Amino acid sequence: MPERTFVKYTFIKVDPEWRRRDPLERAQDKREFAAACNDFAEDHYLRAYSLVGTRGDCDLMVRAATPNLDAIHELHVVLNQSGLMRWADISHSYLSMTKESTYSDEEQPLKPREGSDKKFLIVYPMWKRRDWYLLPGEERMRIMRSHIETGRRHPTIEINTAYSFGIDDQEFVVSFNADDPGEFLDLVQELRGTESSAYTASETPIFTCISTSIERALDALDGETVAAHPTIS
Amino acid sequence: MPERTFVKYTFIKVDPEWRRRDPLERAQDKREFAAACNDFAEDHYLRAYSLVGTRGDCDLMVRAATPNLDAIHELHVVLNQSGLMRWADISHSYLSMTKESTYSDEEQPLKPREGSDKKFLIVYPMWKRRDWYLLPGEERMRIMRSHIETGRRHPTIEINTAYSFGIDDQEFVVSFNADDPGEFLDLVQELRGTESSAYTASETPIFTCISTSIERALDALDGETVAAHPTIS
Amino acid sequence: MPERTFVKYTFIKVDPEWRRRDPLERAQDKREFAAACNDFAEDHYLRAYSLVGTRGDCDLMVRAATPNLDAIHELHVVLNQSGLMRWADISHSYLSMTKESTYSDEEQPLKPREGSDKKFLIVYPMWKRRDWYLLPGEERMRIMRSHIETGRRHPTIEINTAYSFGIDDQEFVVSFNADDPGEFLDLVQELRGTESSAYTASETPIFTCISTSIERALDALDGETVAAHPTIS
Amino acid sequence: MPERTFVKYTFIKVDPEWRRRDPLERAQDKREFAAACNDFAEDHYLRAYSLVGTRGDCDLMVRAATPNLDAIHELHVVLNQSGLMRWADISHSYLSMTKESTYSDEEQPLKPREGSDKKFLIVYPMWKRRDWYLLPGEERMRIMRSHIETGRRHPTIEINTAYSFGIDDQEFVVSFNADDPGEFLDLVQELRGTESSAYTASETPIFTCISTSIERALDALDGETVAAHPTIS
Amino acid sequence: MPERTFVKYTFIKVDPEWRRRDPLERAQDKREFAAACNDFAEDHYLRAYSLVGTRGDCDLMVRAATPNLDAIHELHVVLNQSGLMRWADISHSYLSMTKESTYSDEEQPLKPREGSDKKFLIVYPMWKRRDWYLLPGEERMRIMRSHIETGRRHPTIEINTAYSFGIDDQEFVVSFNADDPGEFLDLVQELRGTESSAYTASETPIFTCISTSIERALDALDGETVAAHPTIS
Repeated sequence: MPERTFVKYTFIKVDPEWRRRDPLERAQDKREFAAACNDFAEDHYLRAYSLVGTRGDCDLMVRAATPNLDAIHELHVVLNQSGLMRWADISHSYLSMTKESTYSDEEQPLKPREGSDKKFLIVYPMWKRRDWYLLPGEERMRIMRSHIETGRRHPTIEINTAYSFGIDDQEFVVSFNADDPGEFLDLVQELRGTESSAYTASETPIFTCISTSIERALDALDGETVAAHPTIS
Repeated sequence: MPERTFVKYTFIKVDPEWRRRDPLERAQDKREFAAACNDFAEDHYLRAYSLVGTRGDCDLMVRAATPNLDAIHELHVVLNQSGLMRWADISHSYLSMTKESTYSDEEQPLKPREGSDKKFLIVYPMWKRRDWYLLPGEERMRIMRSHIETGRRHPTIEINTAYSFGIDDQEFVVSFNADDPGEFLDLVQELRGTESSAYTASETPIFTCISTSIERALDALDGETVAAHPTIS
Repeated sequence: MPERTFVKYTFIKVDPEWRRRDPLERAQDKREFAAACNDFAEDHYLRAYSLVGTRGDCDLMVRAATPNLDAIHELHVVLNQSGLMRWADISHSYLSMTKESTYSDEEQPLKPREGSDKKFLIVYPMWKRRDWYLLPGEERMRIMRSHIETGRRHPTIEINTAYSFGIDDQEFVVSFNADDPGEFLDLVQELRGTESSAYTASETPIFTCISTSIERALDALDGETVAAHPTIS
Repeated sequence: MPERTFVKYTFIKVDPEWRRRDPLERAQDKREFAAACNDFAEDHYLRAYSLVGTRGDCDLMVRAATPNLDAIHELHVVLNQSGLMRWADISHSYLSMTKESTYSDEEQPLKPREGSDKKFLIVYPMWKRRDWYLLPGEERMRIMRSHIETGRRHPTIEINTAYSFGIDDQEFVVSFNADDPGEFLDLVQELRGTESSAYTASETPIFTCISTSIERALDALDGETVAAHPTIS
Repeated sequence: MPERTFVKYTFIKVDPEWRRRDPLERAQDKREFAAACNDFAEDHYLRAYSLVGTRGDCDLMVRAATPNLDAIHELHVVLNQSGLMRWADISHSYLSMTKESTYSDEEQPLKPREGSDKKFLIVYPMWKRRDWYLLPGEERMRIMRSHIETGRRHPTIEINTAYSFGIDDQEFVVSFNADDPGEFLDLVQELRGTESSAYTASETPIFTCISTSIERALDALDGETVAAHPTIS
């Protein structure tokens, strides 16, 4: 079995009360959060995204990947030490694993593609209807291949499917790297007409995440720049 | 492809605790929020609405449109700097894009109609049932044309349909400009009998938004006038 | 078209923290809320109800009716000025309009019956199933007449149906004036067996509201009498 | 018509912040709550239960019964005066009435059985599916009698069914007095196979309530004994 | 009837505000919580788990088992005395009992297996569809045996099924001891194709719990070690 990778999506919502704190305190709170992310990123895959302006129920997202679940646990322990997590909640959390697809014959996205530099990451949890799993294997293969064909007509959009059966509420966490949300919108609307789509039980919430650095994602929380403030201590 | 426009609906709910603040502080909090909106409106489309008296889960709504999603992100970063967002949450958020309709042969509402000066904007997110998308194209065309015909019998009501497939939870954000909620109520009740309506999976929550200036929408939050207080600083 | 009336149901939940305030402050908070209601009631229909003891998710309800939606907006702006709304949320909100019924040949309840002095008002939002609206008109007429006949066997219970299609989440707001909740319970249980009932998609939450003055509804919030405290100022 | 009794179930959840208060203040808060209950219990039926350890969404439950809804309203007004309700919410609330059953020929449980001294009260709201009400009367009678037969094989478990049609969200509030939760568990599992069970639309949440005195239910909130502290005043 | 055991799963979510407290106070809050658990564990089964990094809606879980429900009540009363519960809520709570299975002929997991030292415990509440219970007994036996066969092909994963009919919302609480979440993921995905799976009504939320000591589960809340701080008093 090829090595698998845990992929954790942690969406954070800041309490409005945090914005009442002194700017120097907020800068320190953000630096501690960024430090935890940057330490993890030295040895592991970590990307940050801003949801400011695209959602109302979360402000930033951290996407961490590693074959070792303990490392993901430790990352969140260290985040809990940061000033920011004294004023923030995890509003959405998705734990998943990469895994070879049954359907595709392409090179497998066994881990989040590190080289991707698209402007947006679109993420959603997904559940199939239970009758999907009772279809014969070749029938599911036929339906999925047609689904995949549609996707291939939009080669600029990269898809990563991760699996959550039994380790989190959803069955899949699907994510897409895209530069043009309009093209992605067209693709999803086109896919509504496929057989595969009729077997979807749920695929919300859908998060349009803006790719950025962890520092810029944090600065979007209060509109102030971490770099502008010297370290307090 | 004609240029498309992002349309963002941001519904805001103020924490009751905000109303305990000093009137001068509240005036300042509101001015900062208004300034962020007015700055954005210099180059982009922005309208403000009050929900005070029509809903209980939100107090005001900002509707911003621009071809550039970065600009919408920046608007919300600047709103996060305002005093008001230290005491407020985004209770509902809808991200959508304008797009040519498959069904209508009319001039397309490719962006929110700037000239509209109706008294109300009625907004709701909408999902079709999945079996809708499996109907043959001409069948959907026939059903939609009948639906559109019904709407044309109420020419004073303007409809704007925006699309959210894959970029937010809902499939569509539908909005209507109307002066007479009673006429709109009659239209919606009449539409319940159309075939199209039977293919609706969900179309709530429904927001009856009162068109107003951003300053008046803010003043409705605490019943006090921004203009009555001089700037503190 | 006969004149229509907006009917707004605003259910309010007080933060328990409000009860920690000084009794004189609470009395003032309540007086300001009552004053807003009484001012509105000089020119418009307004009734107050207590939910203390019948529900846990709201404490009092204000029912306001006027042909002018602006007046309902203004009422809520003025309520936002009151001390009470610095410690309270609107937990449920229903906006509706009176309208002639398609089914009944009785004199229409075009506005809330002003003379009603029943002890209770029972209120709930209601949605029909979508297949109801696809039935032929005479079939719906037949079903509704049977439904109405059942109601007529309980002449002491007055029904008011208001309409919310397109202006709020629900399709109808149904309210009943009754002196004996037990008789109403029997009627509703009897109606479960009618054809009409099988086409109901949802009719909860159901609010048993105790008719009272605004002052007494406010006094039920903390068990103290407004009248017992002199005005602070 | 035999006299009916209102039965009110009020489930209370204490804010964790309450536990930060001084022990003497907490003792006073609890005494005021207990006094309201004990005053009511002088003339009416009232029982108290603890949910500490069996649920996470509520801490204690008060079950009050009286033919007079005003008395239940007054009880809750007086509870609102108590210190405890300045730090607590009503997380679940069920209003119901006793009523003769259509199906059983036994002596009717027209009011909560006062003599019951079982260790547990298990309570849940219940809704039947709408197609249940469209079955012919004799069919429903046949199904219910089979259901009742199963229950009779567990004679140590006492059932009380109360009715909420039209006066609260649920149709029924079902409660059971039992000494052995394991025996009740077996009964409910056995009932899953009956025809009657297939017509159940919903029967959650299910509350396993520990019978106790109001004082002991209050002491379970913070693990401290009311009796250990002298009255402050 | 063999002795049965109550199994209680208590999931705790700490208020972010708790992390603002002084480190010495936090250490004391944690020690009091740990002491309550350790006292209980002297005579009863108790295990602790961390959810930091795997979920966002809870931080730690305590799993307590005893034939005596009073002891579980007392444990939670003593937890309510601890400093931590002044800043924490029980976000999920599952009460269940062990019981002989109708389907398996294996030695029964009548109580949580004390010797298990797997790295993870995966837990979820489960409901079967009502039509499951209407199947003939031998049909259910056939379907379950096939289900069990699939599980046996993964002998390193231990399953414990507990029962909640009538004593809590869910019908079952299913838990698995596993060292490799990836193997469990594969098993659950494989089980989706079984007949049994088609009769599942709901099996979320799914909690991936990290086995640890109570002290380490508490230290993950703020990233600080209890042992590092001397007792304050």
